[in-house]
Amino acid sequence: MEIEIATIGGYEEVGRQMTAVRAGDDIVVFDMGLNLSKVLIHDNVQTEGMHSLDLIDMGAIPDDRVMADLDGEVKAIVPTHGHLDHIGAITKLGHRYDAPIVASPFTLELVREEIEDEDKFDLQNDLVAMDAGDSMEIGNGLELEFVNVTHSIIDAINPVLHTPEGAIVYGLDKRLDHTPVIGDPIDMKRFREIGREGEGVLCYIEDCTNAGRKGRTPSEQVARKEVRDVLYSMEDYKGGIVATTFSSQIARVTSLVEYAKEIGREPILLGRSMEQYSGTAQRLGIVDFPEDLKMYGYRHDINNTFERVMNEGKENFLPIVTGHQGEPRAMLTRMGRGETPYQLDEGDKVIFSARVIPEPTNVGQRYQSEQLLGMQGARIYDDVHVSGHLSQEGHYTMLDTLQPQHIVPAHQNLSARASYVDLASSQGYRLGRDLHATSNGDTIQLV
Amino acid sequence: MEIEIATIGGYEEVGRQMTAVRAGDDIVVFDMGLNLSKVLIHDNVQTEGMHSLDLIDMGAIPDDRVMADLDGEVKAIVPTHGHLDHIGAITKLGHRYDAPIVASPFTLELVREEIEDEDKFDLQNDLVAMDAGDSMEIGNGLELEFVNVTHSIIDAINPVLHTPEGAIVYGLDKRLDHTPVIGDPIDMKRFREIGREGEGVLCYIEDCTNAGRKGRTPSEQVARKEVRDVLYSMEDYKGGIVATTFSSQIARVTSLVEYAKEIGREPILLGRSMEQYSGTAQRLGIVDFPEDLKMYGYRHDINNTFERVMNEGKENFLPIVTGHQGEPRAMLTRMGRGETPYQLDEGDKVIFSARVIPEPTNVGQRYQSEQLLGMQGARIYDDVHVSGHLSQEGHYTMLDTLQPQHIVPAHQNLSARASYVDLASSQGYRLGRDLHATSNGDTIQLV
Amino acid sequence: MEIEIATIGGYEEVGRQMTAVRAGDDIVVFDMGLNLSKVLIHDNVQTEGMHSLDLIDMGAIPDDRVMADLDGEVKAIVPTHGHLDHIGAITKLGHRYDAPIVASPFTLELVREEIEDEDKFDLQNDLVAMDAGDSMEIGNGLELEFVNVTHSIIDAINPVLHTPEGAIVYGLDKRLDHTPVIGDPIDMKRFREIGREGEGVLCYIEDCTNAGRKGRTPSEQVARKEVRDVLYSMEDYKGGIVATTFSSQIARVTSLVEYAKEIGREPILLGRSMEQYSGTAQRLGIVDFPEDLKMYGYRHDINNTFERVMNEGKENFLPIVTGHQGEPRAMLTRMGRGETPYQLDEGDKVIFSARVIPEPTNVGQRYQSEQLLGMQGARIYDDVHVSGHLSQEGHYTMLDTLQPQHIVPAHQNLSARASYVDLASSQGYRLGRDLHATSNGDTIQLV
Amino acid sequence: MEIEIATIGGYEEVGRQMTAVRAGDDIVVFDMGLNLSKVLIHDNVQTEGMHSLDLIDMGAIPDDRVMADLDGEVKAIVPTHGHLDHIGAITKLGHRYDAPIVASPFTLELVREEIEDEDKFDLQNDLVAMDAGDSMEIGNGLELEFVNVTHSIIDAINPVLHTPEGAIVYGLDKRLDHTPVIGDPIDMKRFREIGREGEGVLCYIEDCTNAGRKGRTPSEQVARKEVRDVLYSMEDYKGGIVATTFSSQIARVTSLVEYAKEIGREPILLGRSMEQYSGTAQRLGIVDFPEDLKMYGYRHDINNTFERVMNEGKENFLPIVTGHQGEPRAMLTRMGRGETPYQLDEGDKVIFSARVIPEPTNVGQRYQSEQLLGMQGARIYDDVHVSGHLSQEGHYTMLDTLQPQHIVPAHQNLSARASYVDLASSQGYRLGRDLHATSNGDTIQLV
Repeated sequence: MEIEIATIGGYEEVGRQMTAVRAGDDIVVFDMGLNLSKVLIHDNVQTEGMHSLDLIDMGAIPDDRVMADLDGEVKAIVPTHGHLDHIGAITKLGHRYDAPIVASPFTLELVREEIEDEDKFDLQNDLVAMDAGDSMEIGNGLELEFVNVTHSIIDAINPVLHTPEGAIVYGLDKRLDHTPVIGDPIDMKRFREIGREGEGVLCYIEDCTNAGRKGRTPSEQVARKEVRDVLYSMEDYKGGIVATTFSSQIARVTSLVEYAKEIGREPILLGRSMEQYSGTAQRLGIVDFPEDLKMYGYRHDINNTFERVMNEGKENFLPIVTGHQGEPRAMLTRMGRGETPYQLDEGDKVIFSARVIPEPTNVGQRYQSEQLLGMQGARIYDDVHVSGHLSQEGHYTMLDTLQPQHIVPAHQNLSARASYVDLASSQGYRLGRDLHATSNGDTIQLV
Repeated sequence: MEIEIATIGGYEEVGRQMTAVRAGDDIVVFDMGLNLSKVLIHDNVQTEGMHSLDLIDMGAIPDDRVMADLDGEVKAIVPTHGHLDHIGAITKLGHRYDAPIVASPFTLELVREEIEDEDKFDLQNDLVAMDAGDSMEIGNGLELEFVNVTHSIIDAINPVLHTPEGAIVYGLDKRLDHTPVIGDPIDMKRFREIGREGEGVLCYIEDCTNAGRKGRTPSEQVARKEVRDVLYSMEDYKGGIVATTFSSQIARVTSLVEYAKEIGREPILLGRSMEQYSGTAQRLGIVDFPEDLKMYGYRHDINNTFERVMNEGKENFLPIVTGHQGEPRAMLTRMGRGETPYQLDEGDKVIFSARVIPEPTNVGQRYQSEQLLGMQGARIYDDVHVSGHLSQEGHYTMLDTLQPQHIVPAHQNLSARASYVDLASSQGYRLGRDLHATSNGDTIQLV
Repeated sequence: MEIEIATIGGYEEVGRQMTAVRAGDDIVVFDMGLNLSKVLIHDNVQTEGMHSLDLIDMGAIPDDRVMADLDGEVKAIVPTHGHLDHIGAITKLGHRYDAPIVASPFTLELVREEIEDEDKFDLQNDLVAMDAGDSMEIGNGLELEFVNVTHSIIDAINPVLHTPEGAIVYGLDKRLDHTPVIGDPIDMKRFREIGREGEGVLCYIEDCTNAGRKGRTPSEQVARKEVRDVLYSMEDYKGGIVATTFSSQIARVTSLVEYAKEIGREPILLGRSMEQYSGTAQRLGIVDFPEDLKMYGYRHDINNTFERVMNEGKENFLPIVTGHQGEPRAMLTRMGRGETPYQLDEGDKVIFSARVIPEPTNVGQRYQSEQLLGMQGARIYDDVHVSGHLSQEGHYTMLDTLQPQHIVPAHQNLSARASYVDLASSQGYRLGRDLHATSNGDTIQLV
Repeated sequence: MEIEIATIGGYEEVGRQMTAVRAGDDIVVFDMGLNLSKVLIHDNVQTEGMHSLDLIDMGAIPDDRVMADLDGEVKAIVPTHGHLDHIGAITKLGHRYDAPIVASPFTLELVREEIEDEDKFDLQNDLVAMDAGDSMEIGNGLELEFVNVTHSIIDAINPVLHTPEGAIVYGLDKRLDHTPVIGDPIDMKRFREIGREGEGVLCYIEDCTNAGRKGRTPSEQVARKEVRDVLYSMEDYKGGIVATTFSSQIARVTSLVEYAKEIGREPILLGRSMEQYSGTAQRLGIVDFPEDLKMYGYRHDINNTFERVMNEGKENFLPIVTGHQGEPRAMLTRMGRGETPYQLDEGDKVIFSARVIPEPTNVGQRYQSEQLLGMQGARIYDDVHVSGHLSQEGHYTMLDTLQPQHIVPAHQNLSARASYVDLASSQGYRLGRDLHATSNGDTIQLV
């Protein structure tokens, strides 16, 4: 059976991930993501009403025109988790394929919400939920399996396409967390079996985000310990404390919520995406928030809430808000500019439970946000955080576990993937032979 | 009573700390440290046999000639903890003063060992141990108190000189750790009392090492959690694992020792300073190491140990060695160069439970050490660490707690102290009025 | 005669420079500048109509309320050159003082234009022009002299206030350029005389912007050579070339204009501030532009010009535009966003004859601007530039030349001034004695 | 005719360059270089007596065992210029091939000197000089041509192998300098012809050192202008001035020599490699040094010279010495440690006409060297320099000029070559199709 891989998006950037695998006449598409920075660099662009080709021209969504070169039929679109760089182009490209969208329940729900918000296209694709650990038959003699992994969002999986020639493991995005705060540990036992059963692993497509970082990415438990350490250090403070983190990082939100309660403050989630992710997780029963936890996404509700907080005393609350990258229109930045009813005072604390994504735009915007907050007297706690991506030691472990015949580094531009190429080369792989450094729009013939 | 402060060393660098306080006719000297980098920049300099003046000319020890301008008598020399930048010049300068050396037990023992190693001078000063929490009368109506603090070495204290004009709090070096791994939490209750009793705090001399860092320095428990996370991730590895950390960081050594045992490896401490600090701590009963913990400082013993390790199988051991900064002659660097019987293999793990001290010499040497280790196949885990110094939030807390009339920023050059000046200015202090930015060799008249 | 110096603005930042010198009953104010970044961090703030107190609260203009503590009468307001951080607050603060504004002709003309644009206040101060090399009597037994210096703007001077106690030399801003492209070399001969005549120099207030940079700042001739090298390398290119630089850097604009002509392109100056500075310089006869040089500041004219350029062929023109820091609303950024009739094509060249001012906001905005330009196919030439400020060797030279009794480092925050403190200390000055590290709002009693 | 390229060394590092081209049965080897950093990381390694295999294992010289896979006979070994990373392995590998070494006269002379210094192997290969602009027949129907290029060493060429299938242009190392200080401008006319004659360019192997740098590398004339600017600024200084630069950078040495004379100082070249390169250039008549220019390489002569300088007055001399990277044993570092008779005094000037090669080891050593010099009172002028390698604009120009069918990026690791891959991709090349990112030891079949 011919096996071919098209590296469509996310091979020259982090963002707009999309990879297609053709096995015989059947094609499975993994991820259809958005590169948000290519949208935000323009002023006032609203993607909801935009056409695919314009977004492709901007570099915002994958250029899937290479799909025409693949001689087969798309049988499934499989987003691995709910981050926008993995699901954000489904509404723009999904309708071109007569195939169901298969995802884990939380991811699928986020896709559903994306579809509801879309103005331009009307997606009719079936939405099929499959849990980690489950499999389904697909196409002609293929099987699609979801292996549970741990990432900075819940319900992340690595899809595995079992073919007669061996397994194709699509490894985006994960870290090896044996003690996650929510959900099950990464299923290394199953990866080890896949590496050894049948024809083994024909190809492993890997998340290279942190391939240049030494050592291992700590467990989310380490971040949780840091959150605890920081919040307890503020136990006696009689003023305002505000926290921000990635909205989709439900485990972190949970830690913030729990330790807020322990130090006697009511946590409140504020901001559109904060409400969306946490609300969705709660509705699906994936997270066990306190029953009385408030979360608001609309401007009107947020203002009312801030007014209540100011009336009842800031010392009784911990707002958990959007804005960890200093995004100009996010809640925390607006608080820094004094545009909300919440008034910061000298000595108030702002916790960034996030790292600045190391790109000059973010660095500049975050700097401005911290300046604005500081001008109001706030004190910054930064980098209370651990990453959601594998570091080098995780990569060694995955190679050892899966023993793939071929490797396709992904989720970075070539320069950053070079670290991974070095690492894989040290394990006996060879660039151009079984280690494939490709660009967006390339195809690789494996069999 | 006249109160005067001489800022003798450590006000233009980190290293060679020395500050004298004159209250009436009595003088107390806090710290007499060594700037080791000024020694190491020269080839083959052995300080043991060197004269004070030569070391002063090199910038290695404090230029205490300014002491002649102080109209009083030295009544005590008080090192705050056992790091070389605080005790390393006692053997070169202490004999000039007819005064006892007063320190906490562990610190005093390290001073005693320094004196034994000294070749040039013969110190006759009395060595007086005093525990944290205790006080002694000193001079004419003065009282010297030790307040327990938490730092990256055990048995650290902040000395407080109580004068009729108020307390002088010498605040070097500490972080605010409420859950240290060894010893008691920092005694914030006592600091709060000192800030409010009698005349309050006349002057606070502060450790500005990390005054540019936002937020708070995490507890040693966070580092312990990281050590645990890293070592457990290696539980199944069947090869060599080596760890390095600051020899004097006994709490960290303890964590490494304990988790080594938990994952089934025998920890062994190797290297001269590793043996010295941990051996001393064990002899004094300050640390509760396993009875059978081995530690070796001499080349011959180390080689024998490495040979035993190689014979019995590297997978059964965790050598904890010197060399975290890539020092060319330290144990780990020698292992990288293949100069020891311990043989690194592809896939072996090296844990740096330390941060590179951010100075180009260290960065370069550490890089070389990692290169050498990497050429032998080792994989690096770096930065499994938290700092021992206050970050900004700790500084705010100390100012709020002590409410000092005057502040003297210390333990950095002016550029780095500038962050502290900004911070203190935001709290109402004013440069040149009650906030004193001095150079080595200056004096400040407080009363 | 009592001599006192008030360090009012620019001692905790670069921006909003203001220093007052009281000699007996007379006061001279040097500079009244604007910190533009404190304005731009807010959205849509228009300073023209704003009140002084609001701008002071924002940190945008000097807090001159300390002037009330000076026991004397302001006799002159003396801006040293036409940059906004030196003249930009005159329209907001000048009316409070019944004193003339004394400046070199070009600087004075720029002040006049600022006054015309002001909406809130109506300045009635006399405007008095004085050339470099000239002097005037001022107050009671004082003399104000202008010494010619070289900076990144033409007609810069260092004012010297001659008092019976010695000269006060206000040294902002300059580099030592013996071969400037426009105007006379820095008048070191006069500085040397001032250092040796009468009572010598009582106090030197120094521009510390680059005190951390080794060596010497090159002459503008080196930048001119770089401009020539870059433009000649494009001689054969048959497409668009665009250049940007500091609008006020007339010497650089001149080099761009001249070499554009040499390679057969018509230079055109575009953008409001580009037209303002160059137009003013031309009207005053300070610069010798080609007679037919076009410059446009209004949107309508600029669009017409770009349309003409596109019609007649981009290969015949060199637009010299605003936007060197990636300012979101500047001409070049708008060209990058495709908002002007000038269309960039693959291979077109954009020359940044400027350095990114090293602050995260600028770095981020410049990055975005380069991204936008790059997405249209443009190729970036960056850093075709030399600084306008003294490096360390210039500081040594000035100290040697003036031999001042006192030094006041200025034009930076304390952290950056620390490099200068180290440098001056190495020359025998001592912090707190004759070397004064102050904050905004402090006063120093010299006599 | 089959055409195959083996990328043997310098594809995972800068250093140990070696590339072989097989055309039919004939092979030409371009460069055989040394990676000096892999030697220096070890203590006291002397390469002169070492065996090839040990040096290969250390990563110091190319692993040429892949040559056995090439089905042909080596007809020439062609080093492109005299830098060690291009010629330094000839003495260790050259004897394995029965082929002449063909080089430009200066390069060839440096190879001859290397051979004389070699202890282990006895090279018998013919040494054949060929000038830039000349050609020779080689093998069966091939022609080897030398095109004149400009680099940071004189007499650099780019060899072109003309085959029936098109030209192979080996483009290491160069910048596009139309106004070099010594020798002819780069021969772009000939490159343009080669791009258009016959079958055009089949393959271009490119120097990617600076592929991440925007704009263009300035001409050596810009560096010369900087040297002039710096030295003239010291014209009145009555003390010591010392300069350092790359020994092989004869053009820079020339500028230093000439301007030293102009400001009334006798230049003297000191240090083994300084004497070697400049002496060789002078003997060959390539450089027109003053007749009385002294240059010394031996310790004894250097000491004598320094004593003469001290006796006759430092103000009369400009020693030009080795040590620009802070190498621990180089002349300037030894001067910093006070190990030479030349005594530095407060205010003396040290000019680094070089850039720190951005690798932590160099950064650390250079820092230490500057510290040592500074402790003696010296003042540093750094970065009086321009690079010898193409920046992005040069790469665009070369692609446009040669229009190669295939490109092989070289002279960097993959991460740094990634910038070049991006650049070439923007010009229509495609990774894996006609743009080849290889590792050391790979082969590429072109025809």
